[in-house]
Amino acid sequence: METKTVKAYGTEAADAPLKLMSVERREVLPNDVEIEITFCGICHSDLHAAKNDWGGSNYPLVPGHEIVGKVTKVGESVTKFKVGDAAGIGCIVDSCRECEYCREGLEQFCVPGNTIVFGSPDKHLGGQTIGGYSETIVVDENYVLKMPDNLDPATASPLLCGGITTYSPLKHWKVAKGSKVGIVGIGGLGHLAIKIAKAMGGHVTVFTTSLTKVADAKNLGADAAVLSTDKEQMKNLTANFNVILDTVSAKHDVNEYLRLLKVDGSLVLVGLPSEALPVSASNIVHGRRSFSGSNIGGIEETQEMLDFCGEHNITADIEMIRIQDINEAYERLEKSDVKYRFVVDMASLKE
Amino acid sequence: METKTVKAYGTEAADAPLKLMSVERREVLPNDVEIEITFCGICHSDLHAAKNDWGGSNYPLVPGHEIVGKVTKVGESVTKFKVGDAAGIGCIVDSCRECEYCREGLEQFCVPGNTIVFGSPDKHLGGQTIGGYSETIVVDENYVLKMPDNLDPATASPLLCGGITTYSPLKHWKVAKGSKVGIVGIGGLGHLAIKIAKAMGGHVTVFTTSLTKVADAKNLGADAAVLSTDKEQMKNLTANFNVILDTVSAKHDVNEYLRLLKVDGSLVLVGLPSEALPVSASNIVHGRRSFSGSNIGGIEETQEMLDFCGEHNITADIEMIRIQDINEAYERLEKSDVKYRFVVDMASLKE
Repeated sequence: METKTVKAYGTEAADAPLKLMSVERREVLPNDVEIEITFCGICHSDLHAAKNDWGGSNYPLVPGHEIVGKVTKVGESVTKFKVGDAAGIGCIVDSCRECEYCREGLEQFCVPGNTIVFGSPDKHLGGQTIGGYSETIVVDENYVLKMPDNLDPATASPLLCGGITTYSPLKHWKVAKGSKVGIVGIGGLGHLAIKIAKAMGGHVTVFTTSLTKVADAKNLGADAAVLSTDKEQMKNLTANFNVILDTVSAKHDVNEYLRLLKVDGSLVLVGLPSEALPVSASNIVHGRRSFSGSNIGGIEETQEMLDFCGEHNITADIEMIRIQDINEAYERLEKSDVKYRFVVDMASLKE
Repeated sequence: METKTVKAYGTEAADAPLKLMSVERREVLPNDVEIEITFCGICHSDLHAAKNDWGGSNYPLVPGHEIVGKVTKVGESVTKFKVGDAAGIGCIVDSCRECEYCREGLEQFCVPGNTIVFGSPDKHLGGQTIGGYSETIVVDENYVLKMPDNLDPATASPLLCGGITTYSPLKHWKVAKGSKVGIVGIGGLGHLAIKIAKAMGGHVTVFTTSLTKVADAKNLGADAAVLSTDKEQMKNLTANFNVILDTVSAKHDVNEYLRLLKVDGSLVLVGLPSEALPVSASNIVHGRRSFSGSNIGGIEETQEMLDFCGEHNITADIEMIRIQDINEAYERLEKSDVKYRFVVDMASLKE
C-alpha cells in the first residue's frame, strides 16, 4: 500500500521522553478522509500509554486522540466530507461494524474490539496505529466527526475525548432541566462536565479537595462547590443528587458520594483508579442506588455532543503549548498542574 | 387506648432464647384490620434483629414479618377487607404517606421513615411494634395485602418478604422474555428469585459454591447452574448477563459477577454483607455496568408480586415448624441449614 511520510512526536520507550520522529500514513482509500492536524488535546491517558502505566504499550508510540484539523483529501466514495472541511477524530477510528453494539452506535463496546486512534493493530499498514501528535491522519469517513463552525478549533479539540467521556454518561443517566448533578473533581474531564451538565439544565454541585478549586468551580458555571473534606457540608447533602459523575482516577472513598444520592440515583465513574474501590452494601441497598461506570462514547453520540457544544458554545479552558514542550507538559499533567487541558498547536511541528 | 392481650414468642435480650410471652394489640381503629395469624415465615433478618447483629434492637422483641392469616375484625372505615378474607402483612405496616416516595408507592424509601412490623416505634401504643410470632396483629388496611386464593397460605407466607425482595429488583431491572438472568446464592431469597425470574420469561443461571445445590437449582427450575469456584465455567460466561441478582449476605468478590454482565448490565445486591465489597473500576467503566442495590418493595408492588405469584402458582419451598421449636430453627438458619425457608405453623402457639 502506498504511504506518505510525515513528521510526528512520539516515544521509543516507557522511560524515554517524546521526540520528533517520522511515521507513515496510508494514502487515502475510497472511504478515507485525510486531515491536516491543526490542534491536538493532551489527555491523561496519552501519558499513561506513553509510560506504559496500564501495561501493553508497544513502541515507538505516538499518542494523541483529541484531534482537529482541515480535510486535505477525500477518497472517491466519501460523501460526508470535502476538502477544506473542519474535521475531528476522537478515540475510535474503526470497529467491526457488525456486532450488536456497533449496530447500536456503541462502537466503544465493539465485541471483537475497536481500533483506537493510537496503539491498536493497524489493519491497513500492519504495526500499530499512530495518534494525533503528527502532521496528518487518514481515517475512514464513518469515524470522522464534523466540527461545528462556530467553535474555536483549539479549545474544541478536548471535546473529542474529554467532552464525549462526560457528555455520554450525563445523557445516558438522563440529566435534564432540574436534575441535581454532582461532579467529583475539576480537571480536564470535570471542568467540561460542569459546562455540559449546566447546558443540559442541571443544577450542578462540584466536589473538590482543593480550596482554590471551590472558586474555580463557580467561575466555570457550577451552582455550588463543596470541599469534600468538610464532613458537615457533605452530611448536609445526604440523599440530594440524581447523578454524580466521578472523574477521579486516584483512590478515593466512593461511599461518601453514594450516600449523597437520592433513591434510584447513580454514581458514575469515568476515571480508572488502579486500586479497587470498596462499596458498603447499605449505601446501595438502601435507596436502590447504583455505582456505575462509563467509557467514552460512540461515533453518533460524539457527533451529537459536538453539535450540542456548538449550540451551547461549549469548549475547554486550555493552555496552548508547542509540540517541542510536550515533555514539560506531561510532567505538569502528572501533577495535575493544568487549567484544564493542554492543547498542542500542531503548527509548531512544522518548525 | 383499648388493647387486647395475646400470646407471642419473643426474646428479652440479644443472648436469650425466644420464649412464650404476652403482648398487647390495639383494638381496631376505623381504618384497621385485625388478623388471626395462621403462618409466619422466618427471615434471616428476624434472627439478626433478635441477636442485635445490626445494633439498635430493643427488648422484649417479637420478630416475624412474613405474616399470613384470616381477617377477624375490620374497622368501620375499612373498604378493602371483610371478616374471613385471607390477608398478608410484610415488612411495612405504616409510613408518612406524604413524601415523594410514599406518593410513588415506594414506602420502603419513606423519607421521615416507615414503620416496620416489628421493632419500630409504635405510633398508637408507644413502645415498639410487635411482629408476627403472635396470635393476632392489627394493621391499617392500606398496609395489608390480599393473599391469592389459589396459593397455600403456609408456603405463600415467605413471599411477603423473600418474594418482594427478589421480585422488585427483577421487575425494576426489566427482566422479561429472553433476559439472561443470574442468581447468586440459593437460600430463602435465591430459590424464590429462580421461580420468579423464570415466570417473568428469563433464562436463569444460578451461581452457587455448593456442588449439591447445582442439582437443587435445576430442580427449582433454573436453566443452568454454575459452581462459582470453577474459574473455567465462570470465564466462559463473561459478558453474558443482563441482570445478576446477588442474594449473598456474606463477604464475596462481586467483580467475578460484574465481569459476567453484558453492556449496560446490572449486578443487584439484596443481601447486606457487613464488610465493604471492593469494586474494580475497569469492571464497571468497560461495559457501562452497574453495581446496584435493592431493598424489599412498596405496598402496591407487593400486591402486584402476590398476584403475579398467584397467577404463576409460585410459593416457597418450606420446612414447617412449631413455634416451640423456633430456637432450634434459628440455630439451623444460622448455618444456612434449611431448604429453603422455615415457616411457623402459628396454630402451635395456642397449645
